[in-house]
Amino acid sequence: MHYPLSVLNLIKNLAKLPGVGEKTAERYAMHILRFSQKEAEQLASAILDMKQKVRICNSCFALSETEVCHICSNPSRNNTLLCVTEQPADMVAIEKSGSFNGLYHILAGVLSPINGIGPDNIKIRELIKRIDDGKITEVVIATSTSIEGEATASYIVQCISKYPVKITRIASGIPIGGDLKYVDQVTLKKAMETRHAI
Amino acid sequence: MHYPLSVLNLIKNLAKLPGVGEKTAERYAMHILRFSQKEAEQLASAILDMKQKVRICNSCFALSETEVCHICSNPSRNNTLLCVTEQPADMVAIEKSGSFNGLYHILAGVLSPINGIGPDNIKIRELIKRIDDGKITEVVIATSTSIEGEATASYIVQCISKYPVKITRIASGIPIGGDLKYVDQVTLKKAMETRHAI
Repeated sequence: MHYPLSVLNLIKNLAKLPGVGEKTAERYAMHILRFSQKEAEQLASAILDMKQKVRICNSCFALSETEVCHICSNPSRNNTLLCVTEQPADMVAIEKSGSFNGLYHILAGVLSPINGIGPDNIKIRELIKRIDDGKITEVVIATSTSIEGEATASYIVQCISKYPVKITRIASGIPIGGDLKYVDQVTLKKAMETRHAI
Repeated sequence: MHYPLSVLNLIKNLAKLPGVGEKTAERYAMHILRFSQKEAEQLASAILDMKQKVRICNSCFALSETEVCHICSNPSRNNTLLCVTEQPADMVAIEKSGSFNGLYHILAGVLSPINGIGPDNIKIRELIKRIDDGKITEVVIATSTSIEGEATASYIVQCISKYPVKITRIASGIPIGGDLKYVDQVTLKKAMETRHAI
């Protein structure tokens, strides 16, 4: 009760953001207090605007403001290549790298029995349907390399191995610019196992 | 352009918060997308509500929703004791510690010639006026121990030394629970110099 009520209320709401505790929320609130009225209004309306406008692409389940996202509706993308990611942000990361010109399929989660998330809770059925349509020739599985991401990748391989598509997994190894001595042992082992001829 | 426009707009606005870069703003935006409509509205309205309601106490310059804040208007506080802090958040930190029952005076900044902030830009004149009123018997200077905080403390001492008030400075030293070997040398030197009999 040391701050006015409206400040406490904002702190409480900001503390719902991921990784934001009471101290950080307090810092953000103090900063917002110093915002101009216009800046504060812009922030508030950006929140509501995004909630109102953003929906999920009917085809790949990426974030979109239209029924079909700008990647799915882009005729210059290679529609025989499909990259499977966990979240929209993973897709954005790959797009930023400029290394992929195919289409995406966002699972919107990973298999996680401990959290009660099974194959029916993520977009695996929709993935199989897209492959069943017959246009896709290669599926790049780009789920993360966590235990759950790997389990999800294995499950997908199991589900789609009967289709005549090439199934690939995004490579694991030493990050570029990374110092060998600081890389963890599991990554190093993986990098050694999947070494390739030069 | 990999996210929809409304998402990019929110990311841009969130990145104005202190210590929040593009990556963190992106993470916050993805989290807000998963908020319920109600939660998103609560966050947006909390921002606007705070901006609209919060003003500055006429007497101590703390944040308040009323003309005079709940501390200045509390008759059970010791109104002969005045604690000078840089920012409202510093006042809140002292209040949370429960170690002070007097009134506050928020400078709303520190002297910082390099940033063009002189005595007239912070509430020093108002502080002198409060002391000139004659009720105050002790002024506790609780500006931070940065170079600017110390310079501000020295300047205040200079300004008010002609008044018949006791002037004190909040103590510096080893944080409680702190390990001596990890404490920086300037703090350690200060703690040694200001050692007291037990």
